[in-house]
Amino acid sequence: MKRIPLSLLAAATVAGAVASTFSGSGRPNEESTFVTRIPPGYRDWRLISVAHEEGDLHTFAAVLGNDVAIKAYREGKLPFPDGAIIAALHYRHVPSEENNRVFGRSQSFVAGPPTNVQFMVKDSKRYASTGGWGFGHFQQGKPGDEAMMQTCFPCHAQIRARDLVFTRYAPPPQSSEGK
Amino acid sequence: MKRIPLSLLAAATVAGAVASTFSGSGRPNEESTFVTRIPPGYRDWRLISVAHEEGDLHTFAAVLGNDVAIKAYREGKLPFPDGAIIAALHYRHVPSEENNRVFGRSQSFVAGPPTNVQFMVKDSKRYASTGGWGFGHFQQGKPGDEAMMQTCFPCHAQIRARDLVFTRYAPPPQSSEGK
Repeated sequence: MKRIPLSLLAAATVAGAVASTFSGSGRPNEESTFVTRIPPGYRDWRLISVAHEEGDLHTFAAVLGNDVAIKAYREGKLPFPDGAIIAALHYRHVPSEENNRVFGRSQSFVAGPPTNVQFMVKDSKRYASTGGWGFGHFQQGKPGDEAMMQTCFPCHAQIRARDLVFTRYAPPPQSSEGK
Repeated sequence: MKRIPLSLLAAATVAGAVASTFSGSGRPNEESTFVTRIPPGYRDWRLISVAHEEGDLHTFAAVLGNDVAIKAYREGKLPFPDGAIIAALHYRHVPSEENNRVFGRSQSFVAGPPTNVQFMVKDSKRYASTGGWGFGHFQQGKPGDEAMMQTCFPCHAQIRARDLVFTRYAPPPQSSEGK
Protein backbone atom coordinates (compact mmCIF):
# COMPACT_ATOMS: atom_id res chain seq x y z
CA MET A 1 0.00 0.00 0.00
CA LYS A 2 2.98 2.27 0.37
CA ARG A 3 4.91 3.97 -2.35
CA ILE A 4 8.38 2.59 -2.09
CA PRO A 5 11.74 4.32 -2.20
CA LEU A 6 13.64 3.79 -5.44
CA SER A 7 16.41 2.07 -3.50
CA LEU A 8 14.05 -0.85 -3.13
CA LEU A 9 13.73 -1.28 -6.88
CA ALA A 10 16.88 -3.40 -6.68
CA ALA A 11 15.01 -5.83 -4.49
CA ALA A 12 12.23 -6.29 -7.00
CA THR A 13 12.39 -9.96 -7.77
CA VAL A 14 8.85 -11.19 -7.87
CA ALA A 15 9.28 -14.44 -9.76
CA GLY A 16 6.76 -16.70 -11.30
CA ALA A 17 3.59 -14.84 -10.48
CA VAL A 18 0.82 -16.12 -12.71
CA ALA A 19 -2.31 -14.57 -11.26
CA SER A 20 -4.99 -12.71 -13.13
CA THR A 21 -6.46 -9.26 -12.62
CA PHE A 22 -9.31 -8.20 -10.41
CA SER A 23 -12.64 -7.84 -12.15
CA GLY A 24 -15.99 -6.65 -10.91
CA SER A 25 -17.49 -10.06 -11.60
CA GLY A 26 -14.85 -11.80 -9.51
CA ARG A 27 -13.57 -13.64 -12.58
CA PRO A 28 -10.17 -13.01 -14.10
CA ASN A 29 -10.42 -10.83 -17.17
CA GLU A 30 -6.89 -11.12 -18.45
CA GLU A 31 -3.57 -12.65 -17.54
CA SER A 32 -1.57 -10.43 -15.22
CA THR A 33 0.46 -10.60 -12.09
CA PHE A 34 -1.06 -7.38 -10.82
CA VAL A 35 -4.35 -5.60 -10.34
CA THR A 36 -5.04 -3.82 -13.62
CA ARG A 37 -8.57 -2.55 -13.03
CA ILE A 38 -9.71 -0.06 -10.43
CA PRO A 39 -12.22 -1.70 -8.06
CA PRO A 40 -15.52 0.16 -8.50
CA GLY A 41 -16.92 2.36 -5.74
CA TYR A 42 -13.76 2.51 -3.65
CA ARG A 43 -14.20 6.24 -2.88
CA ASP A 44 -17.27 5.27 -0.81
CA TRP A 45 -15.46 2.70 1.31
CA ARG A 46 -14.95 3.15 5.04
CA LEU A 47 -11.86 4.52 6.70
CA ILE A 48 -9.06 2.26 7.94
CA SER A 49 -6.60 5.03 8.83
CA VAL A 50 -4.49 7.91 7.55
CA ALA A 51 -0.77 8.08 6.74
CA HIS A 52 1.90 10.59 5.78
CA GLU A 53 5.16 9.85 3.97
CA GLU A 54 8.06 12.30 3.87
CA GLY A 55 11.48 11.52 2.36
CA ASP A 56 11.09 11.95 -1.39
CA LEU A 57 7.33 11.50 -1.32
CA HIS A 58 5.56 14.27 0.66
CA THR A 59 2.31 12.36 0.43
CA PHE A 60 -0.85 12.12 2.45
CA ALA A 61 -2.81 8.87 2.36
CA ALA A 62 -6.38 8.04 3.25
CA VAL A 63 -6.56 4.27 3.57
CA LEU A 64 -10.03 2.80 2.98
CA GLY A 65 -11.37 -0.75 3.03
CA ASN A 66 -14.27 -2.58 1.46
CA ASP A 67 -16.75 -4.31 3.78
CA VAL A 68 -14.74 -7.55 3.92
CA ALA A 69 -11.57 -5.69 4.85
CA ILE A 70 -13.23 -3.49 7.48
CA LYS A 71 -14.88 -6.51 9.12
CA ALA A 72 -11.56 -8.37 9.28
CA TYR A 73 -9.80 -5.32 10.75
CA ARG A 74 -12.45 -4.84 13.44
CA GLU A 75 -12.41 -8.51 14.38
CA GLY A 76 -8.62 -8.65 14.32
CA LYS A 77 -8.84 -11.45 11.79
CA LEU A 78 -5.56 -12.50 10.18
CA PRO A 79 -4.86 -13.46 7.49
CA PHE A 80 -7.41 -11.28 5.69
CA PRO A 81 -10.09 -13.38 3.97
CA ASP A 82 -10.47 -13.59 0.21
CA GLY A 83 -12.47 -10.65 -1.09
CA ALA A 84 -10.82 -8.09 1.17
CA ILE A 85 -9.65 -5.00 -0.70
CA ILE A 86 -7.64 -2.12 0.75
CA ALA A 87 -7.31 1.21 -1.08
CA ALA A 88 -4.70 3.90 -0.43
CA LEU A 89 -5.72 7.26 -1.87
CA HIS A 90 -2.62 9.43 -2.19
CA TYR A 91 -2.42 13.22 -2.30
CA ARG A 92 0.36 15.77 -2.05
CA HIS A 93 1.00 16.78 1.59
CA VAL A 94 0.80 20.57 1.23
CA PRO A 95 0.56 23.54 3.61
CA SER A 96 -2.81 25.28 3.75
CA GLU A 97 -2.32 29.01 3.46
CA GLU A 98 -6.01 29.70 4.01
CA ASN A 99 -6.03 27.71 7.25
CA ASN A 100 -2.79 29.27 8.45
CA ARG A 101 -4.19 32.77 7.96
CA VAL A 102 -7.05 31.92 10.31
CA PHE A 103 -4.80 30.25 12.88
CA GLY A 104 -2.26 33.07 12.73
CA ARG A 105 0.65 30.64 12.35
CA SER A 106 2.02 28.05 9.95
CA GLN A 107 0.72 24.77 11.28
CA SER A 108 -1.82 23.36 8.87
CA PHE A 109 -1.28 20.75 6.15
CA VAL A 110 -3.99 19.37 3.92
CA ALA A 111 -4.49 16.99 1.00
CA GLY A 112 -3.24 18.73 -2.13
CA PRO A 113 -3.55 17.42 -5.69
CA PRO A 114 -4.24 13.69 -5.94
CA THR A 115 -1.21 11.66 -7.02
CA ASN A 116 -2.24 8.02 -7.28
CA VAL A 117 -4.44 5.32 -5.82
CA GLN A 118 -3.13 1.90 -4.81
CA PHE A 119 -4.94 -1.33 -4.03
CA MET A 120 -4.33 -4.65 -2.33
CA VAL A 121 -6.83 -7.30 -3.42
CA LYS A 122 -6.91 -10.55 -1.42
CA ASP A 123 -7.37 -13.69 -3.48
CA SER A 124 -5.30 -16.47 -2.01
CA LYS A 125 -5.42 -18.63 -5.14
CA ARG A 126 -5.13 -16.07 -7.87
CA TYR A 127 -2.31 -14.22 -6.15
CA ALA A 128 -0.73 -17.20 -4.40
CA SER A 129 2.76 -16.27 -5.56
CA THR A 130 2.59 -12.83 -3.91
CA GLY A 131 1.31 -13.81 -0.50
CA GLY A 132 -2.32 -14.01 -1.61
CA TRP A 133 -2.46 -10.31 -2.42
CA GLY A 134 -2.74 -8.66 -5.81
CA PHE A 135 -1.16 -5.22 -5.93
CA GLY A 136 -2.41 -2.30 -8.00
CA HIS A 137 -1.19 1.24 -8.63
CA PHE A 138 -3.03 3.78 -10.77
CA GLN A 139 -1.91 7.23 -11.78
CA GLN A 140 -4.26 9.32 -13.91
CA GLY A 141 -6.33 6.17 -14.11
CA LYS A 142 -3.53 4.11 -15.72
CA PRO A 143 -1.82 1.10 -14.10
CA GLY A 144 1.81 1.32 -13.02
CA ASP A 145 4.40 -0.24 -15.28
CA GLU A 146 5.98 -3.63 -14.69
CA ALA A 147 9.17 -2.30 -13.08
CA MET A 148 7.23 -0.29 -10.50
CA MET A 149 4.74 -3.04 -9.79
CA GLN A 150 7.48 -5.55 -9.07
CA THR A 151 8.56 -3.43 -6.09
CA CYS A 152 5.28 -3.91 -4.18
CA PHE A 153 5.52 -7.47 -2.95
CA PRO A 154 9.14 -7.56 -1.67
CA CYS A 155 8.44 -4.56 0.53
CA HIS A 156 5.05 -5.73 1.81
CA ALA A 157 6.47 -9.20 2.42
CA GLN A 158 8.47 -7.73 5.30
CA ILE A 159 5.20 -7.16 7.22
CA ARG A 160 4.48 -10.87 7.38
CA ALA A 161 3.06 -10.78 10.91
CA ARG A 162 0.16 -8.61 9.74
CA ASP A 163 -0.45 -10.46 6.46
CA LEU A 164 1.66 -8.00 4.44
CA VAL A 165 -0.49 -4.99 5.40
CA PHE A 166 1.27 -1.88 6.72
CA THR A 167 -1.74 0.12 7.86
CA ARG A 168 -3.22 -0.49 11.30
CA TYR A 169 -6.87 0.28 12.04
CA ALA A 170 -7.61 3.67 13.64
CA PRO A 171 -10.12 3.18 16.44
CA PRO A 172 -12.94 5.68 17.04
CA PRO A 173 -11.49 8.35 19.37
CA GLN A 174 -14.30 8.21 21.94
CA SER A 175 -13.62 4.55 22.62
CA SER A 176 -10.10 5.15 23.84
CA GLU A 177 -8.47 6.88 26.74
CA GLY A 178 -7.19 9.65 24.52
CA LYS A 179 -4.71 12.13 25.86
CA MET B 1 -13.56 21.18 13.00
CA LYS B 2 -10.05 22.26 13.85
CA ARG B 3 -8.52 22.37 17.25
CA ILE B 4 -7.69 25.97 17.85
CA PRO B 5 -4.54 27.60 19.24
CA LEU B 6 -4.91 28.88 22.79
CA SER B 7 -4.22 32.38 21.55
CA LEU B 8 -7.68 32.30 20.03
CA LEU B 9 -9.31 31.74 23.39
CA ALA B 10 -9.22 35.50 23.83
CA ALA B 11 -11.49 35.82 20.84
CA ALA B 12 -14.08 33.52 22.31
CA THR B 13 -17.12 35.71 22.51
CA VAL B 14 -20.00 33.63 21.30
CA ALA B 15 -22.91 35.55 22.76
CA GLY B 16 -26.54 34.65 23.05
CA ALA B 17 -26.49 31.17 21.59
CA VAL B 18 -29.66 29.42 22.63
CA ALA B 19 -29.67 26.24 20.59
CA SER B 20 -30.13 22.72 21.90
CA THR B 21 -28.04 19.59 21.54
CA PHE B 22 -28.06 17.03 18.79
CA SER B 23 -30.08 13.94 19.49
CA GLY B 24 -30.57 10.78 17.50
CA SER B 25 -34.29 11.52 17.17
CA GLY B 26 -33.59 14.95 15.72
CA ARG B 27 -35.28 16.61 18.70
CA PRO B 28 -33.41 18.68 21.25
CA ASN B 29 -32.73 16.71 24.38
CA GLU B 30 -31.48 19.47 26.63
CA GLU B 31 -30.64 23.13 26.54
CA SER B 32 -27.12 23.75 25.26
CA THR B 33 -25.27 25.95 22.87
CA PHE B 34 -23.14 23.03 21.71
CA VAL B 35 -23.35 19.44 20.55
CA THR B 36 -23.27 17.36 23.72
CA ARG B 37 -23.95 13.88 22.31
CA ILE B 38 -21.80 11.93 19.89
CA PRO B 39 -23.74 11.27 16.66
CA PRO B 40 -24.15 7.48 16.39
CA GLY B 41 -22.32 5.51 13.71
CA TYR B 42 -19.90 8.26 12.69
CA ARG B 43 -16.95 5.83 12.41
CA ASP B 44 -18.73 4.27 9.41
CA TRP B 45 -19.20 7.55 7.53
CA ARG B 46 -17.45 8.26 4.23
CA LEU B 47 -14.23 10.18 3.81
CA ILE B 48 -14.18 13.91 3.12
CA SER B 49 -10.41 14.38 3.43
CA VAL B 50 -7.39 14.17 5.71
CA ALA B 51 -5.53 16.90 7.60
CA HIS B 52 -2.40 17.41 9.70
CA GLU B 53 -1.79 20.17 12.26
CA GLU B 54 1.65 20.98 13.58
CA GLY B 55 2.41 23.94 15.90
CA ASP B 56 1.43 22.79 19.39
CA LEU B 57 -0.91 20.08 18.15
CA HIS B 58 0.95 17.35 16.17
CA THR B 59 -2.37 15.85 15.12
CA PHE B 60 -3.63 13.80 12.23
CA ALA B 61 -7.27 14.15 11.25
CA ALA B 62 -9.55 11.93 9.23
CA VAL B 63 -12.55 14.04 8.29
CA LEU B 64 -15.73 12.06 7.59
CA GLY B 65 -19.25 13.08 6.60
CA ASN B 66 -22.72 11.61 6.94
CA ASP B 67 -24.71 11.02 3.75
CA VAL B 68 -26.18 14.53 3.72
CA ALA B 69 -22.75 16.11 4.07
CA ILE B 70 -21.09 13.90 1.43
CA LYS B 71 -23.88 14.62 -1.07
CA ALA B 72 -23.56 18.37 -0.51
CA TYR B 73 -19.77 18.22 -0.92
CA ARG B 74 -19.99 16.24 -4.16
CA GLU B 75 -22.62 18.56 -5.60
CA GLY B 76 -20.72 21.64 -4.44
CA LYS B 77 -23.84 22.73 -2.56
CA LEU B 78 -23.39 25.70 -0.20
CA PRO B 79 -24.59 26.41 2.39
CA PHE B 80 -24.73 22.84 3.66
CA PRO B 81 -28.34 21.66 4.17
CA ASP B 82 -29.82 20.92 7.56
CA GLY B 83 -28.92 17.40 8.64
CA ALA B 84 -25.34 17.55 7.39
CA ILE B 85 -22.82 16.38 9.98
CA ILE B 86 -19.03 16.51 9.64
CA ALA B 87 -16.75 14.52 11.97
CA ALA B 88 -13.04 15.12 12.55
CA LEU B 89 -11.33 12.12 14.13
CA HIS B 90 -8.06 13.26 15.68
CA TYR B 91 -4.98 11.17 16.43
CA ARG B 92 -1.41 11.93 17.41
CA HIS B 93 0.81 12.41 14.33
CA VAL B 94 3.60 9.97 15.19
CA PRO B 95 6.54 8.40 13.34
CA SER B 96 6.18 4.72 12.48
CA GLU B 97 9.33 2.89 13.48
CA GLU B 98 8.08 -0.36 11.97
CA ASN B 99 7.45 1.28 8.60
CA ASN B 100 10.77 3.13 8.67
CA ARG B 101 12.64 -0.11 9.27
CA VAL B 102 11.16 -1.54 6.08
CA PHE B 103 11.79 1.63 4.07
CA GLY B 104 15.32 1.98 5.41
CA ARG B 105 14.83 5.65 6.23
CA SER B 106 12.77 7.90 8.51
CA GLN B 107 9.89 8.99 6.35
CA SER B 108 6.71 7.44 7.64
CA PHE B 109 4.11 8.98 9.96
CA VAL B 110 0.91 7.28 11.05
CA ALA B 111 -2.10 7.81 13.29
CA GLY B 112 -0.99 7.31 16.88
CA PRO B 113 -3.23 7.28 19.94
CA PRO B 114 -6.66 8.89 19.40
CA THR B 115 -6.98 12.33 21.01
CA ASN B 116 -10.50 13.61 20.38
CA VAL B 117 -13.38 13.68 17.93
CA GLN B 118 -15.10 16.88 16.85
CA PHE B 119 -18.40 17.44 15.06
CA MET B 120 -20.20 20.14 13.15
CA VAL B 121 -23.96 19.55 13.02
CA LYS B 122 -25.99 21.70 10.61
CA ASP B 123 -29.35 22.87 11.94
CA SER B 124 -30.04 26.38 10.74
CA LYS B 125 -32.75 27.08 13.31
CA ARG B 126 -31.36 25.38 16.38
CA TYR B 127 -27.87 26.80 15.88
CA ALA B 128 -28.89 30.08 14.23
CA SER B 129 -26.65 32.12 16.51
CA THR B 130 -23.52 30.22 15.43
CA GLY B 131 -23.96 30.29 11.68
CA GLY B 132 -26.38 27.35 11.63
CA TRP B 133 -23.74 24.94 12.92
CA GLY B 134 -23.59 23.23 16.28
CA PHE B 135 -20.04 22.44 17.39
CA GLY B 136 -19.00 19.42 19.42
CA HIS B 137 -15.72 18.22 20.92
CA PHE B 138 -15.30 14.93 22.79
CA GLN B 139 -12.27 13.63 24.62
CA GLN B 140 -12.51 10.22 26.25
CA GLY B 141 -16.19 10.39 25.34
CA LYS B 142 -16.80 13.56 27.34
CA PRO B 143 -17.79 16.96 25.88
CA GLY B 144 -15.35 19.87 25.98
CA ASP B 145 -15.91 22.49 28.64
CA GLU B 146 -17.62 25.82 28.04
CA ALA B 147 -14.39 27.82 27.65
CA MET B 148 -13.04 25.51 24.97
CA MET B 149 -16.33 25.26 23.12
CA GLN B 150 -16.66 29.01 22.86
CA THR B 151 -13.52 29.11 20.72
CA CYS B 152 -15.07 27.08 17.86
CA PHE B 153 -17.42 29.54 16.23
CA PRO B 154 -15.20 32.67 16.08
CA CYS B 155 -12.53 30.68 14.28
CA HIS B 156 -14.87 28.89 11.87
CA ALA B 157 -16.71 32.14 11.18
CA GLN B 158 -13.63 33.31 9.28
CA ILE B 159 -14.34 30.68 6.60
CA ARG B 160 -17.63 32.32 5.66
CA ALA B 161 -17.25 31.68 1.91
CA ARG B 162 -17.41 27.92 2.50
CA ASP B 163 -20.18 28.01 5.13
CA LEU B 164 -17.70 27.91 8.03
CA VAL B 165 -16.15 24.59 6.95
CA PHE B 166 -12.36 24.37 6.69
CA THR B 167 -12.04 20.98 5.03
CA ARG B 168 -12.28 20.68 1.25
CA TYR B 169 -13.38 17.45 -0.41
CA ALA B 170 -10.59 15.11 -1.60
CA PRO B 171 -11.49 13.83 -5.07
CA PRO B 172 -10.81 10.21 -6.07
CA PRO B 173 -7.24 10.15 -7.44
CA GLN B 174 -8.09 8.43 -10.72
CA SER B 175 -10.45 11.22 -11.71
CA SER B 176 -7.72 13.85 -11.70
CA GLU B 177 -4.64 14.60 -13.71
CA GLY B 178 -2.40 13.60 -10.82
CA LYS B 179 1.30 14.28 -11.02
